Amino acid sequence: MQGTVWFKLSGTAFLIFTTMENIAAILHGANDLRIESVPVPEIKENEVLLSMKSVGICGSDIKYWMYGKCGKFTLEKPMVMGHEGSGKVVKVGSGVKHLKIGDRVAVEPGVPCGTCRLCKGGRYNLCQSIFFCATPPDDGNLCRLYRHSAEFCFRLPDHVTDEEGAMLEPLAVAVYSCRKGKVGLGTKLLICGAGPVGILTLMVAKQNGATTIVITDIDDTRLALAKSMGADVAIKVTTDDPSTIAANISNIIEGFPDVTIECSGTNFGFSTGIYATVPGGLLVMVGRVPGGVEFPLNLAFTKEIDITGVFRYANCYPTALDLVSKGVVDVKPLISHRFPLSETVKAFQTAASRDTKAVKVIIECDQN
Amino acid sequence: MQGTVWFKLSGTAFLIFTTMENIAAILHGANDLRIESVPVPEIKENEVLLSMKSVGICGSDIKYWMYGKCGKFTLEKPMVMGHEGSGKVVKVGSGVKHLKIGDRVAVEPGVPCGTCRLCKGGRYNLCQSIFFCATPPDDGNLCRLYRHSAEFCFRLPDHVTDEEGAMLEPLAVAVYSCRKGKVGLGTKLLICGAGPVGILTLMVAKQNGATTIVITDIDDTRLALAKSMGADVAIKVTTDDPSTIAANISNIIEGFPDVTIECSGTNFGFSTGIYATVPGGLLVMVGRVPGGVEFPLNLAFTKEIDITGVFRYANCYPTALDLVSKGVVDVKPLISHRFPLSETVKAFQTAASRDTKAVKVIIECDQN
Amino acid sequence: MQGTVWFKLSGTAFLIFTTMENIAAILHGANDLRIESVPVPEIKENEVLLSMKSVGICGSDIKYWMYGKCGKFTLEKPMVMGHEGSGKVVKVGSGVKHLKIGDRVAVEPGVPCGTCRLCKGGRYNLCQSIFFCATPPDDGNLCRLYRHSAEFCFRLPDHVTDEEGAMLEPLAVAVYSCRKGKVGLGTKLLICGAGPVGILTLMVAKQNGATTIVITDIDDTRLALAKSMGADVAIKVTTDDPSTIAANISNIIEGFPDVTIECSGTNFGFSTGIYATVPGGLLVMVGRVPGGVEFPLNLAFTKEIDITGVFRYANCYPTALDLVSKGVVDVKPLISHRFPLSETVKAFQTAASRDTKAVKVIIECDQN
Amino acid sequence: MQGTVWFKLSGTAFLIFTTMENIAAILHGANDLRIESVPVPEIKENEVLLSMKSVGICGSDIKYWMYGKCGKFTLEKPMVMGHEGSGKVVKVGSGVKHLKIGDRVAVEPGVPCGTCRLCKGGRYNLCQSIFFCATPPDDGNLCRLYRHSAEFCFRLPDHVTDEEGAMLEPLAVAVYSCRKGKVGLGTKLLICGAGPVGILTLMVAKQNGATTIVITDIDDTRLALAKSMGADVAIKVTTDDPSTIAANISNIIEGFPDVTIECSGTNFGFSTGIYATVPGGLLVMVGRVPGGVEFPLNLAFTKEIDITGVFRYANCYPTALDLVSKGVVDVKPLISHRFPLSETVKAFQTAASRDTKAVKVIIECDQN
Repeated sequence: MQGTVWFKLSGTAFLIFTTMENIAAILHGANDLRIESVPVPEIKENEVLLSMKSVGICGSDIKYWMYGKCGKFTLEKPMVMGHEGSGKVVKVGSGVKHLKIGDRVAVEPGVPCGTCRLCKGGRYNLCQSIFFCATPPDDGNLCRLYRHSAEFCFRLPDHVTDEEGAMLEPLAVAVYSCRKGKVGLGTKLLICGAGPVGILTLMVAKQNGATTIVITDIDDTRLALAKSMGADVAIKVTTDDPSTIAANISNIIEGFPDVTIECSGTNFGFSTGIYATVPGGLLVMVGRVPGGVEFPLNLAFTKEIDITGVFRYANCYPTALDLVSKGVVDVKPLISHRFPLSETVKAFQTAASRDTKAVKVIIECDQN
Repeated sequence: MQGTVWFKLSGTAFLIFTTMENIAAILHGANDLRIESVPVPEIKENEVLLSMKSVGICGSDIKYWMYGKCGKFTLEKPMVMGHEGSGKVVKVGSGVKHLKIGDRVAVEPGVPCGTCRLCKGGRYNLCQSIFFCATPPDDGNLCRLYRHSAEFCFRLPDHVTDEEGAMLEPLAVAVYSCRKGKVGLGTKLLICGAGPVGILTLMVAKQNGATTIVITDIDDTRLALAKSMGADVAIKVTTDDPSTIAANISNIIEGFPDVTIECSGTNFGFSTGIYATVPGGLLVMVGRVPGGVEFPLNLAFTKEIDITGVFRYANCYPTALDLVSKGVVDVKPLISHRFPLSETVKAFQTAASRDTKAVKVIIECDQN
Repeated sequence: MQGTVWFKLSGTAFLIFTTMENIAAILHGANDLRIESVPVPEIKENEVLLSMKSVGICGSDIKYWMYGKCGKFTLEKPMVMGHEGSGKVVKVGSGVKHLKIGDRVAVEPGVPCGTCRLCKGGRYNLCQSIFFCATPPDDGNLCRLYRHSAEFCFRLPDHVTDEEGAMLEPLAVAVYSCRKGKVGLGTKLLICGAGPVGILTLMVAKQNGATTIVITDIDDTRLALAKSMGADVAIKVTTDDPSTIAANISNIIEGFPDVTIECSGTNFGFSTGIYATVPGGLLVMVGRVPGGVEFPLNLAFTKEIDITGVFRYANCYPTALDLVSKGVVDVKPLISHRFPLSETVKAFQTAASRDTKAVKVIIECDQN
Repeated sequence: MQGTVWFKLSGTAFLIFTTMENIAAILHGANDLRIESVPVPEIKENEVLLSMKSVGICGSDIKYWMYGKCGKFTLEKPMVMGHEGSGKVVKVGSGVKHLKIGDRVAVEPGVPCGTCRLCKGGRYNLCQSIFFCATPPDDGNLCRLYRHSAEFCFRLPDHVTDEEGAMLEPLAVAVYSCRKGKVGLGTKLLICGAGPVGILTLMVAKQNGATTIVITDIDDTRLALAKSMGADVAIKVTTDDPSTIAANISNIIEGFPDVTIECSGTNFGFSTGIYATVPGGLLVMVGRVPGGVEFPLNLAFTKEIDITGVFRYANCYPTALDLVSKGVVDVKPLISHRFPLSETVKAFQTAASRDTKAVKVIIECDQN
């Protein structure tokens, strides 16, 4: 730390901003995550500089940390981690109108090109030249000072906390999943996997009109959490046979799920979705399949279950913020652990371990 | 009354059924509603005979009673009233599988042809040869004994009352309106009119994810009810200028409604919807416009507000029943008055009068 | 044959109808197809009796004939074959209004229950209690006299031939595939497989606005036919690697297909669709996958390619008839062989053999 | 003209560009259109400078010229006219990748903000801060030299002419109208109004699968053109009663239009659409209603005809270009008159007069 700057705001308000050595949690390779000093970013006219507040750890972060890759993306040079973040505006580009210094914001981590066919068509999550925090080669926001496109920063009302702001990222996935799954009034919904995304999906789906929600997992703690969050039926997966689970679900709910949202990232979840979903229904793939087994694909085709993948989200942050702000979705019970930025490695270890019973681990970037 | 019949059910259960002189509330012309004896209907193989329980009175019923017509339909011969009904099964056609004697059911009042282009396409409410209770020339079910297609009778679970069964009809309108309005997560919704359909729409929309609901009416009592049912903003209409109300709404909610559902049946409501709804939004017409004034139609076209009419509903009874059965929508507070079948005229008078503060008036067909 | 009946039609028109011993092509087991005498069917009030004219042979027919099963359906008792048929009305049920004796009709082979949730919702092809010609245990219409629901018989104008009437069945599959694939103005379309369904899909897609159509197959003759029918690019599959073909397609069309319609029933086609289709696109599965290999499913999920199965069709016969009747789709060039009913086995052999270069084989039921 | 600049392109190619005094057709008020000298624009990094080629005159241009206003927009300061344009790239911003000097392009005249809710959602035509050529206060491109966002310039293949490039603008309206009208396979379509947009809609709809197209107008010449362009039925409007025309259409096509696209900008057309369209159908408003009469709105609501407005278009230029480039839509027959830039007033007079039988009038900006 080297000094203090006073920003004069309108009237007599002042903002005290202490200039900092910027530090960041940088992944250099599998199992090599370091806290290092980095330059303070320069902002462009449509950008803001943020003093980062809360940043959550996600399953993909853990994969990069453990294996140096996740899905089709591979770490090829050191990368700042973090994409579930909130921060406070400390500098504003000349072209930015809707934000001012001192505003607290949630950071939508993907900034698309805005002009390709997919962007113009409203599906900017599929933009082939999108910048996305902590997806190689793009740096994330697990750091002290971070710049971002103002249009992808959403101002938090006073009663929404920084941690809730960080939680908007996985919540946006849940919102998008429910949209792609066409969850609505009276939907019978099966959710495979009771991790953070599964639980958030459950919470969102309830607000969206789903009247019967079944959730499956292998972990009793997670199922108990799901029950407490409003799942009508929580089923522990103890068999190798997805068709058995599917039949079990049908018996319990006296019918078939209209929609299955797969959040477990297992082959079992995908197959269960195909067996369980009603003819003409939808199977939404938030998780990915490890592969190596055969799936009952022809059954899906013959039942005309539409299989739709979820890749991040588009146009969901405003809705996610609205749900939290209006108090209809309470994300706070999912936050199980908190660490300062300096203990990022410990935070990752906690998030990665089953023993810790971690649900969502948050790193507070402005704490030492 | 002329005797008693014992139906043997499975095991040792018996059903006692007292044969009755069937009586019905028959409209002979404007202001000429009579309680008269009618024959006991014969059922076909796919039908059931119902001992009617609760039947609600709707705005269209009042119009037929007061004027002998409603919209494009005109009474041309005496017609049994009633289309918001529930009953108990007392006789089952040979082809009926999902119902048995003693089952309590809600009656979806429209029975479409099932084979025209619109029926095959899933829009059976638009079937040009649909039978619909108490729409001329089809008789309704405000009577003791009534036959109906079994496929349009929905079994009520034990914990759902006969009155709730009757309320499924207006609730189905609300469900359909929300579907046509694409109400969903975070929807900002304007409802014009806080009568029974407006209030039910409010309740359904909240369950469907709407996070901001504004409702308008000219009546303080109705607005108070709307507030108690969860409206975020209840606005009393005191001006002649719909654009003023629209501007007022924008100021209050700091934005524009994504959807307006017009339930007031006034020109004012329609115009307000056009002024208030966000560009690219939806305006759902449950009400009809009396006409005689000009509307800002070009504004609707230029803002690309899609205007979509609601004519009854299709595929909404199962959802309406689900919402009531799961306890997420409570229709009971809307029932303000009850009358026995013999006092049907008084019931209509009560429903028609503003002084009575009536919301929903129910006639109990099995009471004397 | 035992006699002649004269039907008097309106005015001085007469219809001569020779009563026949009804005969049918009955499958008794794998490779055991017999022409046998069967009773003349009795019709119900909503049915017509048809003197069958042209009946096409489809890939599923060949599978039943060769293996006694197809997909999830297995022959368990002798079954009349045939589901791509046209006929002439010789008897009319009392409740039938839109058909009269002498009308020539195309027969939509599936007759759904009409009252289940899926039927009411417009997706009657998924009805769990549908009757469907020549799907075990339901008898088909490869016979002299056949009864069918009048609502699923579509009157052919004079200028549409019986053979064209039979061809409406596979054409309906093509119509449905284009609908599910959201083919429209400027669609870049990949069709895997240039058999009859692939070719019909090509023809329909061109009428639907597709401006770039690529088709793949392993057979030069089929590809040549596809080219002559309007394919912009016809690619011979000579590699084992679907990603190579996909890259090849991208190079040729300078972009990616918006939609892939898989009509080859091969694993290769399914994988090609995933590799080739543009992010955010659609993959329509008309074919089924033999299985036994891994598919790039995660790529489909990450690219958000929606995978949608096609199971028969719903609400497509009127459109298929319209396309043929208005002359915009000409199905006649696909008919490569014709046989009388008595030579049904020879017809099946011809359809099953690659050497015959058969595209569509038609059986003329009223020829000896 | 004051000199010549040589641009060196790759290799030995050179582009000769003669610097010009930039001149523009500027509207100063109703009936006050002047050709005046204007500065050569400076381009930004994402822009190109165009030497304008062909610019079409549209009905809205005529309205500004005659009345100084059009719809909700009013001329408040001098404005360069022109929004249906094509040009040749003469200068390229540093950030532009897909265009180079010498490329011929069609100019999509609207450049949206790219970051508001509507832009992010794919409905950029509704962007509230869109720049749009020749809509007050934004200058158009009826001039020699014009700068534009490169992302809204579409490169024309060699075989597509400059005039065809200009015609993409009204063609984009037709594409958008067919999309909003869900025109598809077998659609029965009514088009009210056989002006340029009506005719283009007809041509596009035919390519999109519409098999029955009825078009109405009051002008025999236009109807004859429509017939020659493929209309199945061309009806001359000679009555005051839209329900009579609607009944007439039903009789002729033995059914009801699935969709009506109103392109006449008359009250008559709007009412005809409501009377004629099939229950459950769509009414697309490309035209606007002059007002002052009552419309059968309740009939529209009761028939559940969705009324949807068209305001410009979004994501339609690539499709329009594809249709022209692939030769499936031929726009050239619609061009009835051509004028050099210096004769712009005469061009407007010609376009405005019924006597000239003008369909589309084009101004060639690089001709003297």
